[in-house]
Amino acid sequence: MSNSDKAEGCDFMNIGFHMPTRVILADNCIDTYKEDLKGHGQKAIIVTGATSAKKSGALHDITQALEQLEISYCIFDKVMANPTITCVYEGAEFARKNQADFVIGIGGGSPMDAAKAIALLAVQEVKEEDLFSHQIEDRVLPILCVPTTAGTGSEVTPYAILTNDKKMTKTSIASPYIFPKIALLDAKYTYNLPMGITINTALDALSHAIEGILSVRSTSLSSGLAVESIKTLMQCISFLEYGKGIDTGNLIPHEIREMLLYGSMLAGMVITHTGTTAVHSMGYALTYFKNVDHGRSNGLLLPSFLRFTAKSNPEIVKKVMNAMGITSMDECEALFLGLIGEREQISEKEMERFASIAIQAKNVNNSIVAPTKEDIINIYTRSLKIF
Amino acid sequence: MSNSDKAEGCDFMNIGFHMPTRVILADNCIDTYKEDLKGHGQKAIIVTGATSAKKSGALHDITQALEQLEISYCIFDKVMANPTITCVYEGAEFARKNQADFVIGIGGGSPMDAAKAIALLAVQEVKEEDLFSHQIEDRVLPILCVPTTAGTGSEVTPYAILTNDKKMTKTSIASPYIFPKIALLDAKYTYNLPMGITINTALDALSHAIEGILSVRSTSLSSGLAVESIKTLMQCISFLEYGKGIDTGNLIPHEIREMLLYGSMLAGMVITHTGTTAVHSMGYALTYFKNVDHGRSNGLLLPSFLRFTAKSNPEIVKKVMNAMGITSMDECEALFLGLIGEREQISEKEMERFASIAIQAKNVNNSIVAPTKEDIINIYTRSLKIF
Repeated sequence: MSNSDKAEGCDFMNIGFHMPTRVILADNCIDTYKEDLKGHGQKAIIVTGATSAKKSGALHDITQALEQLEISYCIFDKVMANPTITCVYEGAEFARKNQADFVIGIGGGSPMDAAKAIALLAVQEVKEEDLFSHQIEDRVLPILCVPTTAGTGSEVTPYAILTNDKKMTKTSIASPYIFPKIALLDAKYTYNLPMGITINTALDALSHAIEGILSVRSTSLSSGLAVESIKTLMQCISFLEYGKGIDTGNLIPHEIREMLLYGSMLAGMVITHTGTTAVHSMGYALTYFKNVDHGRSNGLLLPSFLRFTAKSNPEIVKKVMNAMGITSMDECEALFLGLIGEREQISEKEMERFASIAIQAKNVNNSIVAPTKEDIINIYTRSLKIF
Repeated sequence: MSNSDKAEGCDFMNIGFHMPTRVILADNCIDTYKEDLKGHGQKAIIVTGATSAKKSGALHDITQALEQLEISYCIFDKVMANPTITCVYEGAEFARKNQADFVIGIGGGSPMDAAKAIALLAVQEVKEEDLFSHQIEDRVLPILCVPTTAGTGSEVTPYAILTNDKKMTKTSIASPYIFPKIALLDAKYTYNLPMGITINTALDALSHAIEGILSVRSTSLSSGLAVESIKTLMQCISFLEYGKGIDTGNLIPHEIREMLLYGSMLAGMVITHTGTTAVHSMGYALTYFKNVDHGRSNGLLLPSFLRFTAKSNPEIVKKVMNAMGITSMDECEALFLGLIGEREQISEKEMERFASIAIQAKNVNNSIVAPTKEDIINIYTRSLKIF
């Protein structure tokens, strides 16, 4: 693969690989690898949302393991979807007050990202206005992550993505110091996810893997991982459909839950090395202004972004479609629409505004084919319902 | 791939992944990433063999970078092929005497493995007789590696393999604490390798990737990396042939050198997770008693080992052959023979003796189809010329 890909415009053999997180994906891994919770500190702060960590059983398993190991802990369960800066400063204050010396993030992307920011802010003095430009130092509390969704891949990335009200979008803190030390993945924590969340998070993972291929920073290695991720996730697609009036999320077999978790983790490894593309920049506006779920936003925009990319670089899009096991852009669009259902509406004025914000994000120029503002408007137009 | 592979006997979704080494593969990477040589210590001990580090230009580039950074260094260039225990103790003593506080291994597998052992022995008191059973502690000097061959993958493994005269084989020290911190890979350091060494090291890499698939510890992820490695290495095979009377090693194009380096690094990542199999155990005897090069030993034995494995588990061997792009065991044998040329001779008495030693190695039971002593004799018989 490496050789034939060299012509595609990125330096496939200029490879950087750094993924220090130790990943454990296994049934009952928290209990089996309990001993590995030792050695990070005397007191854990568990960072999580209000419900999912509890519902999933992950919080129970972690606290039970900590109790058996006689490691004390405190729980900060105030992380909302798309966490705010205020939220992570509050968490950091809570960590300091409780003298926590390591952090366990349990949940989807939001709690895990918040956990990373809290691990940083608990020990480094950073003014709120400097948070996204701050030169992060080596001193960060050790971070462990337990994902309860299969989408974000945050358990293996050096990113913490927070709502940035100043720029009216989501912005990431990126530093090798906030890589989780250990990621503990157990498919059973995703059993009870409703079908809607299962689909949205799967779309997020698929988007990460596909955007990894479409990134200027794509290498032979990241691309190999992306293809493996896409192939794995595509095997799950036929299990992801809304039941007729009932939520069929809890009917997804264990093996499929496991493959979704594996595929999303791989996709996290991919974006660790490639970053994301204009799809994420455009999607952030839908999330920020219209409250569209993050994964769903990516899923809405991806087909049109692929179609746009194919005009200038058909080879790279063919590679994505090969990995997906499909042969045409129409097939691709139908596949995503099947997962998305009814699309959101957007006005022309909104598109203009969102495009103005999206075009400023640095992910835009991370795309092999970088869209102009006009291109972005066209992609929004094709992706959403205009009113 | 993950799903269909589940039937093959290993728990593909019981995934552990830990590869904390930061890998940089790029032209002129030592100069470009010079700043990353900082922060590991005040004085480096450069561990290398007598000639290869010098000839390759890697020693020059490293010492120049250290001088520019005003980091002092000492050079221990006494590492022989298949390094002895005496050698690494001597190196550790040299490191202590020179107050080195980090280690740079430059060379093939032997100097890099010796560098890891020296990094350990320089700070931990270990009796020679306890070296392979010692409980390794956290305190190890930071290790950086610069490979000058494309085969061992040692730059990304937690293994240091040393000659073990007591057991009359090679034995490995394995610990996450001896992972190199950084691996700097530049294909130009392999330009001047003679064709013989290029072939032997490529055979070693190919063997690592293939054995990774044949290992009981194989997972979906390690297997994906193995397939990528095998495909990459197989693209290079047609460039690897002895010239008619002249050594054509220096005629191998840059892109092929680069792919060999990439493929061998990937294969290193694979065995980091899977370990090696009976092929290595059997090969060690050829190296220890008959001085057959390590990679060549693996290359000699692999086809017959694959044939042996196929009898009980044809599916797994088919997977290897698919990755190699071949369709039959005969084709496989011909391919390896083409790279090996004239095979070594072995007597029946030697085979009996080697099999007695090989069967005791723990890699044997790491094989999906573990051979008995009799199987091992049969594999030797088929792989070598009997006299």
